Amino acid sequence: MKTCSSQNCPSPSDDFIGELSRRIVETYADGMAVNHNEQSNLPRESEILENLDRILELIFPGFSGRSALSMIALPFSVGDTLAQTYVSMRDLICRANRFLCGRKPQDCDCMSKAEDAARSLLESIPELRETMKLDIQAAFEGDPAAKSHAEVVLSYPGVKAITIQRVAHCLHLKKVPLIPRMMCEYAHRITGIDIHPGASLGKGLFIDHGTGVVIGETASIGERVKIYQGVTLGALSFPRDACGMIIKGAKRHPTIEDDVTIYAGATILGAVTIGRGSVIGGNVWLTEGTAPGTKITIAQPRLTIRQQNGAV
Amino acid sequence: MKTCSSQNCPSPSDDFIGELSRRIVETYADGMAVNHNEQSNLPRESEILENLDRILELIFPGFSGRSALSMIALPFSVGDTLAQTYVSMRDLICRANRFLCGRKPQDCDCMSKAEDAARSLLESIPELRETMKLDIQAAFEGDPAAKSHAEVVLSYPGVKAITIQRVAHCLHLKKVPLIPRMMCEYAHRITGIDIHPGASLGKGLFIDHGTGVVIGETASIGERVKIYQGVTLGALSFPRDACGMIIKGAKRHPTIEDDVTIYAGATILGAVTIGRGSVIGGNVWLTEGTAPGTKITIAQPRLTIRQQNGAV
Amino acid sequence: MKTCSSQNCPSPSDDFIGELSRRIVETYADGMAVNHNEQSNLPRESEILENLDRILELIFPGFSGRSALSMIALPFSVGDTLAQTYVSMRDLICRANRFLCGRKPQDCDCMSKAEDAARSLLESIPELRETMKLDIQAAFEGDPAAKSHAEVVLSYPGVKAITIQRVAHCLHLKKVPLIPRMMCEYAHRITGIDIHPGASLGKGLFIDHGTGVVIGETASIGERVKIYQGVTLGALSFPRDACGMIIKGAKRHPTIEDDVTIYAGATILGAVTIGRGSVIGGNVWLTEGTAPGTKITIAQPRLTIRQQNGAV
Repeated sequence: MKTCSSQNCPSPSDDFIGELSRRIVETYADGMAVNHNEQSNLPRESEILENLDRILELIFPGFSGRSALSMIALPFSVGDTLAQTYVSMRDLICRANRFLCGRKPQDCDCMSKAEDAARSLLESIPELRETMKLDIQAAFEGDPAAKSHAEVVLSYPGVKAITIQRVAHCLHLKKVPLIPRMMCEYAHRITGIDIHPGASLGKGLFIDHGTGVVIGETASIGERVKIYQGVTLGALSFPRDACGMIIKGAKRHPTIEDDVTIYAGATILGAVTIGRGSVIGGNVWLTEGTAPGTKITIAQPRLTIRQQNGAV
Repeated sequence: MKTCSSQNCPSPSDDFIGELSRRIVETYADGMAVNHNEQSNLPRESEILENLDRILELIFPGFSGRSALSMIALPFSVGDTLAQTYVSMRDLICRANRFLCGRKPQDCDCMSKAEDAARSLLESIPELRETMKLDIQAAFEGDPAAKSHAEVVLSYPGVKAITIQRVAHCLHLKKVPLIPRMMCEYAHRITGIDIHPGASLGKGLFIDHGTGVVIGETASIGERVKIYQGVTLGALSFPRDACGMIIKGAKRHPTIEDDVTIYAGATILGAVTIGRGSVIGGNVWLTEGTAPGTKITIAQPRLTIRQQNGAV
Repeated sequence: MKTCSSQNCPSPSDDFIGELSRRIVETYADGMAVNHNEQSNLPRESEILENLDRILELIFPGFSGRSALSMIALPFSVGDTLAQTYVSMRDLICRANRFLCGRKPQDCDCMSKAEDAARSLLESIPELRETMKLDIQAAFEGDPAAKSHAEVVLSYPGVKAITIQRVAHCLHLKKVPLIPRMMCEYAHRITGIDIHPGASLGKGLFIDHGTGVVIGETASIGERVKIYQGVTLGALSFPRDACGMIIKGAKRHPTIEDDVTIYAGATILGAVTIGRGSVIGGNVWLTEGTAPGTKITIAQPRLTIRQQNGAV
């Protein structure tokens, strides 16, 4: 590698790096946004993603690209992958638990909770896989551009985001801290679809394109729902306690019943219910619920149309 | 690595992993979302991206960061890169063809089609590069924040998404399955710009910022068009067959003629034509076409403005 | 790896690769979008991201996942990281400077400018860290779904995008070319939040969800501002010179004063001022400023509501 050499590089007597080090270390003293390995080392993202990759490989075998898959070897590789994932997830969950626990390892139940959560996650895989088949079928039937099931698995961001959220939701239900949120933020990063791990998603969900979709922590979505890009299922206001602080976790996001379609850019805010079979048009802004079978479209805003004289 | 040790880890007699393995393998029996290497192993994303990286290096030499580039070595490295890419793309395309072919390798023309598609892709590179120069120039002239052509190549997501789509479109025209869509979804992932490989893009296209842009499979875009973030060129409805199933591939997205500008958040739906030189304002929602030279802006929705008494 | 073997692969006599090589190399002759290492090799993205990763590790120690962090080793590892980052950033900045300089290395001040910029960046870290603590606190207090400060650091895309922009802004102030923009585009890629390195961001900024947010080069944001997904702080029009070319760099984006909240999908265009404590509602489209303490909401567009007879 070619480097720009310099005559006037800092002389050893100019100890700006040493002084700066001391100033930086001082800002760590309050412990805020500092993660160290004395008793409470947080799970690393790379470790979480390695496990998530293994879980996705169990759900969609042969699609992760980790290795070519032979049907003959499958029963053995599945057991091996499960065992590795169990041990690794158990340890990561334990570390996440301990970060927030505060008690000494011998006095807390962080490890037994972690074992329970890891096992519960893995035991949900057969059901997750059946659910994802319905999601894939929904994408294939719902999109005229979808040419095969394989194409849907390989290239539909909605399928990826939903799969990861379903995995994270299993951990969320077991009250695992940090890890489910990190998994969903990974899904957000690679798809633009931001679903909180707390949201409850029904079967046969299809999210098309997906960029800009936001689905909040306490949202609940029924079966066979279709959602397009830019849809927000958000909170209208935040309940506050007597001190004016926001109350964490209270129900504040919509409930979407079965067979609802929500077109691009629509926003639904608050703990309202969108009734079964409703159709919410593009760009609609709703802060109230709908009866079942309601079709809502936005009135076309008045457009100003000017004709240019042979312009351009 | 520090691991959380545990006294009560699953004993060998508790064979939950073995039982779970069997249950998971059972869910693979229907073959849905299972990819194996007995005769039909799908191309892996990592292999496709490796080739895409090489093709981008041929279009923008020295910019991929794969290695420092010397003008003296260039004629040799280009030949070497082309040869590697030809062989690798040919094999990947052949695997994608075979996945959907069903006939025995000796009875099908998957390989000769793959050779033709790979060669056609590489032979389009000189023209692709000339087209991309016009796209870079359009970004440089269209954005007051652009300081140099190098900055545009290095950091404009629109240029990246358009380049990848132009490459994928070459393969789409040769009816290559799966791979073009995976390339465009990769572009979507890293830019937030979702262009289907089927869309036809004219020269000198500028997409600024780009997050949330969706351009559908049968959209057609003329020359010197400008598109801003959040623009959708989508379908209004999906033609269905007698059984109520969506018909795949029918024309259902807009045609944008030359010199049109479409500002942020505008949505144009259906197989309509936006005439030459038209300007579509931010957030406009259109399901009809425009004559050439039309300027459309949305009427400002009535705003409710309240003054707070020295609030905050 | 299984390859599709072929009898009819191109024979040595069919020199399509050799001919294509020559045609491709010809398109490099004008030098556009070509980066080579004769005197002007551009910084590579991978090198920039390696340094950015080190800087983020200094701001949020132990969070990058690069290695487990011990409080005992911290003073030493900080010094080591600083020294490595100084040398590497200095060289990268020098290369970026030289790409645009045109003079011979011995005649220009590219290296001394690079030393100044690299040192200035590192010396801003203690203040950056104090600022980020306020940003983390703002996210924790502003989002009912936030469970801990660690969760905010690990999984809030807004925190990531803002941190990277603050780092890039330090370099922008020192007039470093290319690198700040590449850093911010990396942030855009992983978060969907597109903030130009030129924008000036106040302390305690919270961007929630963030996908689709665009903040332009000359925007200025005060303290304790909240911004939700899909917000654009953009330009309304571009000043042009006598030749009709866009003037680069002129003030054209909004100024947001302290304690303003801007809800999802709002668009504010032009060099207008949004007064202290104002609240801009979701989807509002503004091309004028507001007095302090103004609350603006969009009038609900008329909705068309149809009831379907027991549909679905």
